[in-house]
Amino acid sequence: MSVSWPERVRVVEVGPRDGLQNEKAQVPTAEKIRFIDLLSEAGLPVVEATSFVSPRAIPQLSDASEVMQSIKLLESVEYPVLVPNSKGMERALAAGVRAIAVFTAASEEFTRHNINATIAQSLENFRPVIELARQEGVSVRGYISTVFGCPYEGQVAPEKVADVALALLELGVSELSLGDTIGVATPKQVIEVLDLLLSHHSIPASQLAVHFHDTRGTALANVLAALQVGITTVDSSAGGLGGCPYAPGAAGNLATEDLVYMLNGMGIETGVDLEKLVAATRTIAPFLGHTPTSKYYQAAMSASN
Amino acid sequence: MSVSWPERVRVVEVGPRDGLQNEKAQVPTAEKIRFIDLLSEAGLPVVEATSFVSPRAIPQLSDASEVMQSIKLLESVEYPVLVPNSKGMERALAAGVRAIAVFTAASEEFTRHNINATIAQSLENFRPVIELARQEGVSVRGYISTVFGCPYEGQVAPEKVADVALALLELGVSELSLGDTIGVATPKQVIEVLDLLLSHHSIPASQLAVHFHDTRGTALANVLAALQVGITTVDSSAGGLGGCPYAPGAAGNLATEDLVYMLNGMGIETGVDLEKLVAATRTIAPFLGHTPTSKYYQAAMSASN
Repeated sequence: MSVSWPERVRVVEVGPRDGLQNEKAQVPTAEKIRFIDLLSEAGLPVVEATSFVSPRAIPQLSDASEVMQSIKLLESVEYPVLVPNSKGMERALAAGVRAIAVFTAASEEFTRHNINATIAQSLENFRPVIELARQEGVSVRGYISTVFGCPYEGQVAPEKVADVALALLELGVSELSLGDTIGVATPKQVIEVLDLLLSHHSIPASQLAVHFHDTRGTALANVLAALQVGITTVDSSAGGLGGCPYAPGAAGNLATEDLVYMLNGMGIETGVDLEKLVAATRTIAPFLGHTPTSKYYQAAMSASN
Repeated sequence: MSVSWPERVRVVEVGPRDGLQNEKAQVPTAEKIRFIDLLSEAGLPVVEATSFVSPRAIPQLSDASEVMQSIKLLESVEYPVLVPNSKGMERALAAGVRAIAVFTAASEEFTRHNINATIAQSLENFRPVIELARQEGVSVRGYISTVFGCPYEGQVAPEKVADVALALLELGVSELSLGDTIGVATPKQVIEVLDLLLSHHSIPASQLAVHFHDTRGTALANVLAALQVGITTVDSSAGGLGGCPYAPGAAGNLATEDLVYMLNGMGIETGVDLEKLVAATRTIAPFLGHTPTSKYYQAAMSASN
């Protein structure tokens, strides 16, 4: 009966960027800033703050520079931003960004629909961005979407995930986030994919993060499986912000409250104060137009009524 | 990286009894019957059908005899009913019941609030019920509530759980269902409690079932942990029926859809047809006054719109 988990997990909070980007509501810039500040004060070690995408493409994120320049930068917290291309990178650097993330997928059809490029083209586009990041000493995270399934192609071969992962590492990315974009993964598949990357391709666990969506309720079970094979970095979104764009009305990102409740309850150190986290979600909730999907959050709100 | 799970899991569907009993809405008897028939046709091996409690105490279940006598009894399916005392047992036997369940808890305060008795008194009350069941060849399941925490006492000592478990087995109960009544358990605690019962007290895994509530989102992760230490019987409720009476508005029972999606996805045999299960929940949904909480169900409904 020996089942083991890491002593410490690094939670990467993606609510202000990935979460809000996938909410319908337009949240005022001042509220985004307040939300990020409350999240970093709650002890989250990484708070993905915004995205320097084209303001025309995603109007909700056109305030990226203002957000970056107005948040309180705590020394203990990293504030990565999403950067799609060199133009975005220049704006990010001008705003004082010290950590960025780039974004591709393990499925060709998804990449074509999402950014109108092949996977190979998307990687080529990152080359100058990552080059500039390295010159400036800025760390680079690489998101890989559709690792466990694609809304267009269905199943995704784990070897395809490995190809993209190795290509990103080769380009100079320091951490990979493996995304279950449509929330179809189950624990056995999680272990199979991770085993391929960790054992067969010898990618260190410290360079891998998991990013699950709770669309079918399996996100936390998938996290548990990932921890058991050595993963120590987990992405999540305060309140569960960000629905599933492929199943409108269904759940999206794993909620940070539910993740932290489980980890803290297991004695796995996160550094996150759960009450402060709930308070952060509570401040953004009135701007969403719906109740945050986090079950822990809902139970906490219900208990406080 | 060896993580293993059982090849087959027996899912105990508790929606028609435990689920509906904790819903506010009064569901017409004909709809309950239809719901049970659809669940057994979906391949669930056990469908808890109703409860022979005092009709005055729980009016929603005053149609217990009619339900039992009207459902289609499939040979492959067990239809246990809850029985609180000898009077209920006589009514259950008269209605043709072949499997019953009795109900106590691991916390004194909870038992006092719930059935106005000490745990010892509750066990004494079961003695004639279980005696009668054995004479009639009726199987007996024992529910133990508040195994992982109590709404009144907080933490519950695992040894207290073991005492109650051993007393129930001594009385002649053939299966124990370990309930996380308020949905506070995390996987480490699950393994600790199960380890005590399985290893230290040598209770066979085949006599233990787990019954998690998803109040804080951890139910499926807890199931995964339980499977890893050898548990092969898991309780759940179609659609997630049954809120949490200790946190109104928050989630209650683990949803059968979410459980079966995970198990089927891991290649663990359940015999359950997920589409038929969703169809069963869909027929009862209009009578609840709210959307069923199952994430898989919500994603399926959203995809079919």
